[in-house]
Parts: sequence; C-alpha cells; structure tokens
Amino acid sequence: MSYRAPVSDIAFTLKHMTGVSELLAEGRLGDLSEDLMDAILEEAGKFASEEIAPLNRVGDAEHAHFKDGKVTMPEGWRRVYEAWCAAGWAGLSAPEEFGGQGLPTVMLAATQEMWNAASMAFGVGPTLTVGSIEAFAAHASPEVQERYLKRLVSGEWMATMNLTEPQAGSDLNALRTRAERAGDGSYRLFGQKIFITYGEHDLTDNIVHLVLARLPDAPAGTRGISLFAVPKFLVNEDGSLGPANDLLCANVEEKLGIHGSPTCTMLYGEKDGAVGWLVGEENRGLACMFTMMNNARLIVGLQGVGIAERAFQQALAYAEERRQGRNPDWQGEGMAPIALHPDVRRNLATMKALVHASRAICYACAEAIDRGRIEEGEAGKTWQERANLLTPLAKAFSTDIGFEVASIGVQIHGGMGYVEETGAAQHLRDSRIAMIYEGTNGIQAIDLIMRKLPQSGGEAVRGYLSELREVAERAAASNRVDFGRIGERLNAALDDTEVATEWLLAAVGEGRISEALAGATPYLRLLSLAAGGAGLARGALAAANSADGSGAAAAHIHTARFFAENILTASGGLKETVTGGAASILAADPDLLSA
Amino acid sequence: MSYRAPVSDIAFTLKHMTGVSELLAEGRLGDLSEDLMDAILEEAGKFASEEIAPLNRVGDAEHAHFKDGKVTMPEGWRRVYEAWCAAGWAGLSAPEEFGGQGLPTVMLAATQEMWNAASMAFGVGPTLTVGSIEAFAAHASPEVQERYLKRLVSGEWMATMNLTEPQAGSDLNALRTRAERAGDGSYRLFGQKIFITYGEHDLTDNIVHLVLARLPDAPAGTRGISLFAVPKFLVNEDGSLGPANDLLCANVEEKLGIHGSPTCTMLYGEKDGAVGWLVGEENRGLACMFTMMNNARLIVGLQGVGIAERAFQQALAYAEERRQGRNPDWQGEGMAPIALHPDVRRNLATMKALVHASRAICYACAEAIDRGRIEEGEAGKTWQERANLLTPLAKAFSTDIGFEVASIGVQIHGGMGYVEETGAAQHLRDSRIAMIYEGTNGIQAIDLIMRKLPQSGGEAVRGYLSELREVAERAAASNRVDFGRIGERLNAALDDTEVATEWLLAAVGEGRISEALAGATPYLRLLSLAAGGAGLARGALAAANSADGSGAAAAHIHTARFFAENILTASGGLKETVTGGAASILAADPDLLSA
Repeated sequence: MSYRAPVSDIAFTLKHMTGVSELLAEGRLGDLSEDLMDAILEEAGKFASEEIAPLNRVGDAEHAHFKDGKVTMPEGWRRVYEAWCAAGWAGLSAPEEFGGQGLPTVMLAATQEMWNAASMAFGVGPTLTVGSIEAFAAHASPEVQERYLKRLVSGEWMATMNLTEPQAGSDLNALRTRAERAGDGSYRLFGQKIFITYGEHDLTDNIVHLVLARLPDAPAGTRGISLFAVPKFLVNEDGSLGPANDLLCANVEEKLGIHGSPTCTMLYGEKDGAVGWLVGEENRGLACMFTMMNNARLIVGLQGVGIAERAFQQALAYAEERRQGRNPDWQGEGMAPIALHPDVRRNLATMKALVHASRAICYACAEAIDRGRIEEGEAGKTWQERANLLTPLAKAFSTDIGFEVASIGVQIHGGMGYVEETGAAQHLRDSRIAMIYEGTNGIQAIDLIMRKLPQSGGEAVRGYLSELREVAERAAASNRVDFGRIGERLNAALDDTEVATEWLLAAVGEGRISEALAGATPYLRLLSLAAGGAGLARGALAAANSADGSGAAAAHIHTARFFAENILTASGGLKETVTGGAASILAADPDLLSA
Repeated sequence: MSYRAPVSDIAFTLKHMTGVSELLAEGRLGDLSEDLMDAILEEAGKFASEEIAPLNRVGDAEHAHFKDGKVTMPEGWRRVYEAWCAAGWAGLSAPEEFGGQGLPTVMLAATQEMWNAASMAFGVGPTLTVGSIEAFAAHASPEVQERYLKRLVSGEWMATMNLTEPQAGSDLNALRTRAERAGDGSYRLFGQKIFITYGEHDLTDNIVHLVLARLPDAPAGTRGISLFAVPKFLVNEDGSLGPANDLLCANVEEKLGIHGSPTCTMLYGEKDGAVGWLVGEENRGLACMFTMMNNARLIVGLQGVGIAERAFQQALAYAEERRQGRNPDWQGEGMAPIALHPDVRRNLATMKALVHASRAICYACAEAIDRGRIEEGEAGKTWQERANLLTPLAKAFSTDIGFEVASIGVQIHGGMGYVEETGAAQHLRDSRIAMIYEGTNGIQAIDLIMRKLPQSGGEAVRGYLSELREVAERAAASNRVDFGRIGERLNAALDDTEVATEWLLAAVGEGRISEALAGATPYLRLLSLAAGGAGLARGALAAANSADGSGAAAAHIHTARFFAENILTASGGLKETVTGGAASILAADPDLLSA
C-alpha cells in the first residue's frame, strides 16, 4: 500500500486553521505567495509519494546494516537521498545567506510531515539535520559556519545530535562526556553517547556530530555543558575531506521499528580524543541544544501526524476492499465492504479526526514560531509564548495519536493486520518511538505544566484559551444542522480546560508541585483536545463560509463534528483526573505497588 | 527480566472479588478446598515462573521455524511442554472420565493466566487444545472420544481450531471448505484454512485439527456448517499412529509478535481428500464451535491480563532501578529512582489498576461459567446469562488493556523500551494479537449489544448492574478515609452505565440497529470500567474488613481508589459517545472520509 501525500488537506489546514493566509496577504513571509506555497506542497507531495514512499518497506525489511563499525543503508536509499538534495529540499528552511531557501516554519512543517509519512525511518535523518542547521546558524562562529553549515544546507553532509548517555537520558545533569581545550582553538572529546540517530551511515560522505560535553573546569549540572561540532572526517583548509576523526560507531540497536534508521552507540576519543569545535559559548551548550531541539519537537510531532495519515489511508483502502457480513447500506452483490459497518466507520472516522486535529495543532505551532520571529515587541513575545505553549502539545499529542491511529489501523485489518507483509504493523512499530525520543511525552507534559503554563503569570495560556473560546462561540452561533453539537461540545471542553488550567496554575504557584505534576499527562491531553477541536471547528467554519459546494467542505465539517461528539467527550473525565486524581497517584509508591 | 506469578493477587481475586469461597465452603466445587486451591495456584505459579517464562525470549528470537512443510519449535520448548504434561496440567479442567482432573473453570482461568503471562506464544497452543477438549467431550461420538480425547487430555497430542478462510474471517457464512461423505462413516475434506494457530509443530507426535466445512447438500450460510476432526496422522485401531493424512502446512506467517507460535496456512485434500470424522451432528457445527470458542474467549482475555501483569512487573522493577532527576521523596544520594516521579507513579498505578480490574472481570466470568453449570433452574439460567454477558467484556476489555499496559511499560523504559533486547517491546508486539483473534474486539462489542444485552428482555444486564450498585453503596457507606471517592465515583459510573444501557436496549428493541452498533465499542469499555471498578471495590471492602494489617490490604484499597479516581472518570464521556455519537459515526461513509 502506497502513500498519497494529502496535499489539499495540508493546504486547507494552513489556509483555514492557521493565520498563514493573512501573513501571505500582508507579504510578511518574504517572497512566498499562496500560489508558490501550493506549488511547493504539490512538488513535495509528488516527491514523497513517488520517491520516498517506496523506500519504507525496503528499509523495514533490510534494516540499516552494521558491520565492522560501518553502516550500509538499505537498497535505494542513497539514490533517493541524493535526488532529494538535488531538488533543494535539504535547505528549504535554512537561511538564504548559507544557501538555503529561507522558507518559513509552516513550509518546513508541511514538507516534513510528508517526508516522514512517506518513510519515518528515512525522514528522521534529515529532520535532525534541520535542527543542527538552526543551531549552527544561530550559535556557531563564522569559521565553523563556513566549513560545515553550507554543506548541511545543501544536504552534501548530514548532522546528528549527541545528548544521551547511559546514565543521562531525560536528566542531562548526569552528563559525563568531557571536552578538553587543545590550545589551538579546537577541543578533544572523550565519552560515550547512545541512541544516536543516523550516527553512522553511507548516505553522505561526511557526518557532523553535535555533541554535548563538559569542560574540565565546568560548573556541575546543566550549567556546565558545552556544545561541540565533531566531524566524522576532519575537513582540510580547502574544504576537502581530511583524516578520520577519533570516533566510531560501536553498535547499532536492534529496535522495535524504524529499522532503516541506524540508532548508534558512538564512542568519542578512544585514542587521542575526537577533535571538535565549540558551537556557541563555553558552558552555554544547553541554550544551543534548545535551539536544536525546539523545532525538532514540532517535527517529531509531525512524524506522528504523518504516520497516522498513512495508516489511515491504508486502513480506509482496505476497508473499502475487504468484504465481510451484511449491511443495510450495501446494495451490491454478496458481502458488504467492511467500511460500511458502524464499528468500522467509527474506527475510520476516529483515525481521520485525530490526524486532522493533530495536524491543526502542529501547523498552529509552526505559525506561532514564524510569527514569534516576524512580529515585534509585545506581539512577538505573545507569539513566542504561544509557540512555547504549543510545542509540547504538538510533540506529545501528535505522537500519542500517531501510535493510537496506527493501532486502529492494525485492528481494521483484522488478522491481516498482524501479518508483517500487510504493512499496517510496521506503522505501529515505527510510530512508537516518536512518543519517546526528543523528550518523552511525560517530559513534554511536565514542561507544559512547569514552564509553559506559568508564562506571563498564566496570561499566555489564558489568552490562548480565550481565542479558542471565540471559535467555539462562532461555531455555536452558526446554527447549522450539519455542525451538530460542535459549539456545545467545544464550549464544554473549554469549560473543563479552564478549570483544570486554573487548578494547575494555582498548584504550581502555591508550590504544590507534585500535585501539579501528577496531572500533567491528562492535562496535556485535555488541552490538546480543546486545541485540536477548535482547530477543526475553525476549519468547519471556513468550509461552511466557502462557496465551495464540493464534498471536501462537507468532509471538513463532518470531521469537526465527529471529533466534537465522539472525542471531545473525554474532556470531563480528564478534568476530573487532573483536579481530583493527585492524592491516589502520589500515594502510589513502589512499596505499595509491589505489595 | 523474569516473571513472578502473582499467586497471592490471583488468590485474593478469586476469594474476595468472586463468590468462589462460598462455593468452596458449600462443597459445590467437588473435592476442591481452599487449601487445595492455594496449593494448585502455588505449583502452577512455580511452573510458570521457573519453566515457561525462560522460553519467552527464546521463542521471540528464534521463531517457530518453517521448512519443507515442517515446523521446528524453538529450543527447549518440547522439553518444557512434556514436563508440563507430565505434571498433569494439560487435563486440569477436562472431565475425569476422560482422564482429566475435572477442576472448575476458575482454576482453569487462574492457571491459564499464568501460562500465558509466562509466555503467550507458548500458552496459546494449550489454550486452544482446552477448547477442543470441551468440544470433543460435549459433542463427539464415543469412538472419536476414545480415539482422540484421552490423548488431548494427557497432552500427548494437541488440537487446533480451523475456522478462518481468506474470504471468511468474522463472517463464517462465506465458508467454502467442503466435506464429502466417504460412505464408511468418515468424510473427505477439501479446502484452505488460514491463521491456524499451532497448525503444525513438533511439540507432539500428532495434531488433531478441528475443521469447519460444508457438506455438498448443506443449506447456505452458517446453518450449513459441520465440524470435523482431522488428524495429522491417521490412527490405527490399536491406537498407534498410521499413515499421514492428506493435509499440509503450506506457510507460516511472519507476524508482529508471538513468534514462537506457528500461525499456519493449512491445505486439506490436495490429493484424495483429508480423512475426517464428524464432531456433533451434520450442519450443526456452529454450536460445537461455540463450545470450543466460548471459554477460549475468556482465556484470550486472560492472555491480556497475564501479559499486562508481566509488563507491569518489568516496568516496576526498571523504575525502581533506573535513576534520573531529583525528587522530594528521595533522601538517598544522587539521582532519584524514576518510580518516585509523579508522572511515573501515575503510569505504574495505571498499569496495576488495569491489570487488577481486568483480572476481576475475567475471574467473575469464570465463576459465572462454573455456576451456570452447577446451579439449577432459574439460578442456572441467570448464571449462564451472566457468563454470556461477561465473556465479551473479559475478552475485549482485558486484551485492550493488555496492549495499553504493555505500551505504558515501553514508555516507562524510555529509549530502552524501544530496544528489543530489553523485552518490553516484545510484550507490546505479543499482546496486540489478542485484540484480534477469537473474534475481534469490535465483534465482541457487537455481540455484547446485539445478543447479550437483550438477554431476558434486558433483565440479565439490569440484574448485574444492580449487584454492582450494591457494591458501590457499601463502598460509599464505609466512610473510610483511605477509600477516597471509591463509592462516589463508582456510583457515578453506574449512573452513566445505566443510562447508556437503557439507551442501547431501546435502540435495539426499536430496530435502530446501526445506531446501537455505532456505540458498541465505547459501551463495552464503559460497562467494563464499571464491572472492573466494582470488582476492585469489592476487594477493597474485603481488605478493609480483614484483620490483616499488612501492606497487601492497603494495596488492594489503594488500587480500587486509584482506579475510581483516575480511570472511572472516563465514564461520563463514554456515555455521551454512546448516546450522542451515532449520527456523526453513521454519516462517515467512505466517500466522505476520502473527500
């Protein structure tokens, strides 16, 4: 089963669930026009569907192959990667001064959704390179930029992020990799990093590792961490490749999924030390890392959206094809397509609604990132806070539903879904990692509660909720029959969200931190449902106002209605859990759990 | 990570969340006493933990190996299988007249949970043999019983169930395998069956296939289906093995999980026809099949409970070991065990509560099956209806949560959870099939709505709900601080369940079938939450009344409270979806979904 990039759905989301059209109309996204945007989406969709999608199954079956410290990528991957670079996709969002196209984050988001939907194992390598390009552009010295950045922007080389060590996962305080000053402006690194995505491969001739490490005189904790660029091959003055650096890939993990993506254990400085160059200032590596990771979280969220979209397409096609049982809506001969059975309709509609809601959140997050850069003064701050607020939602909710939707997809296939040949199970396996990497979804929820809700004394989230409320009121006022209870359910969900939000703001404000943290995950879900439901409602209002009498308008309205009446219904229970569940959660200590 | 059979939790569930102790006290379970029950559970737990559990990873890594029509089972499996038979476990619940021990279904349930938790791929073969033993005992002729049944009871041979064909999965009307009368009382079968669990293997020297097929003059549809016993090797008059039958294993599926369990494509009658003997009457095969499948559904539910228990044990052990970050409850040196962090506490408590709630439902179902057989007259009918009602809950809810809990287990392991070596991912992969086989969970929900709710005009489910209400009232009346809001939340959930139940009964009664079916899956979840919550509350009341001041009593109370305050909270949303979601579900036709 192949993937057909949902270009018109993506364009609809950008134009009608975010304010991108306004930005375009005001000429605030550079040379980008609505026509150009459509053309880029069309081309990206074609490349994703025709070139990348066929790699997905090959990568799963062949794995990235590890032998003697070298990784050989699956059949056809290098060819497609090179074609992808040649088409200019690697530098899509990179600054023009370094050879990029300088397109906004909304375009990065849309294209990343498509690459990762076509093949998540393929998409994740370029995804991480995008983050490193941002870190290099923002923090590296002109020399380092000159030597590395342009070749990352062209895609000639790829980059990696080296954070995790065996004892330091979510908690970077425990980081041990050390860096010593070499005296010539360079550094020597020593240490082990694990779970390094694309740490070694043969898609490109060189790989630039961005490595977090400690200097000998660094303060303890995360304020003593610096970021270094450590190339696989040293680079000569003339830009040609020099000798191999003192680093090696010691192992590639055998994982549940994304088998085409090599997840490496990297050893730095087994001999004299791996040669590295500082990115940013000494001991300020964490700030650089956040530059690197922030958009990466959004894009990982888009992996969830993308894989869910692909799983939905496959399940819908199967459900239209597969025939079992009778159904009153079936007038044809023999058994009915299972897509007609009410339980399967519910499953398919759930898949679609979750995809569209999470897409709405991710693109709203991308818009906020762009506006945070474009707008000035107070407005700029507001949009930056909005981007901060939406990033954990985009990452965690979208990847949660990515896995949920992939699982529904397996279920719709019945026994065939459990057979690897069908491909439905691969989506399930692949999607599972996105809930874990770039900060587990639990960490995202904690970030939301502890750092994002308290922004501007709670006014950032309150302002956002009042915008969602406006959408709900407009939906409620529309009085259209085909809207069903969109307005009513969205208002109820916002009531629940406001109660939970104020409860958490009070708990954090009063120092009842553990109580607040106990409700972090259900709150992230609650706020995401409200955000997604409002995004869909906004789309439904636009569809209702359009002269377009096509099926697409009816479909957008239906998706918003289904979401409101069947998924937003969870809001009351989530609110209850956030505001009333902490006591029994905090009582759950290991002794009691194992008694 | 190994598995430690939760013998005391299982015993507690049987004694305090079901009426087994009363049955024992009244001497109505034959020779079984509470002491004997405890001894059997203890022995089974030892065998499961020490002998079977080590097979689990081996089976996943090696797979059941298929070559030239033969399947070789993983290293050590035959040895353990033979030891398991030698210890008498194969015939635990089989009638004594055929060499079994005649123990009640509650004991079958408890032991099956343990075999399947220790290794689901290992457990599933014996699980299906249990079903066939029941079918043979109830429906086969004395000759067939003599020739096959005793050797299934001893475990010398194993049996399979052959229902599915490529075009006939959930809908057996489409069955095409045909059987011809041979004139000597035997039959010749011709056809292809797929997804046949343990269709070929080398654990036993013979395999007895139970095959659904049509006679030439059979009526169309499911009233024209007969059941046949078709042995791999024909059996001579003296009981020795004769020539190979005309059947073969043409393929073994490459699956997402349970790699140790061979899932076979079976071809019958490629030459002169596979020799088979009728089980039950001609064209009455479906009734025999239901005998075979009914307890199988309960036991598949117990696979969900078991694998969730194992995933919980592993996650708890990891969370106590793994250290990341700071925590106010941690007085030790360095980083805190992650089990102390509120978000991880919530995850661990969720895992445990779902395991215990689903176990309560499954054992209540087993009790109802036993009482349905033991009690006479009206009481017998009531208990049979109770068993009918609880079977889809036991199957679908337990396997849903089996997968959910396994996924939480992966999440608690972070990046390590995605690495196959850790074992957490295997539980996720293995558990996924239980939602599909023995009737998908969607089919279970439809069965619940269409056949189980309308039993005795709705009085079966109403009677059950009023029993749950009594438990809620007792919990509410207890006024214990450590009960938190158990009574209040359970009463609220029962309010929701009653509303949804009456809505569905009315819809089915008035012929609004599609509307009812649209809510089937959320209703199954809702009723299961109420049933599970009440089971835990019953356990909490027993724990509170016991003189036992140990941690175990406090733990049972805590589990019930956590479930009530953090999981039962979903009831309102589920009710809303059941009673208000149908319109948008039924509008979701394929054209709209793909527009």
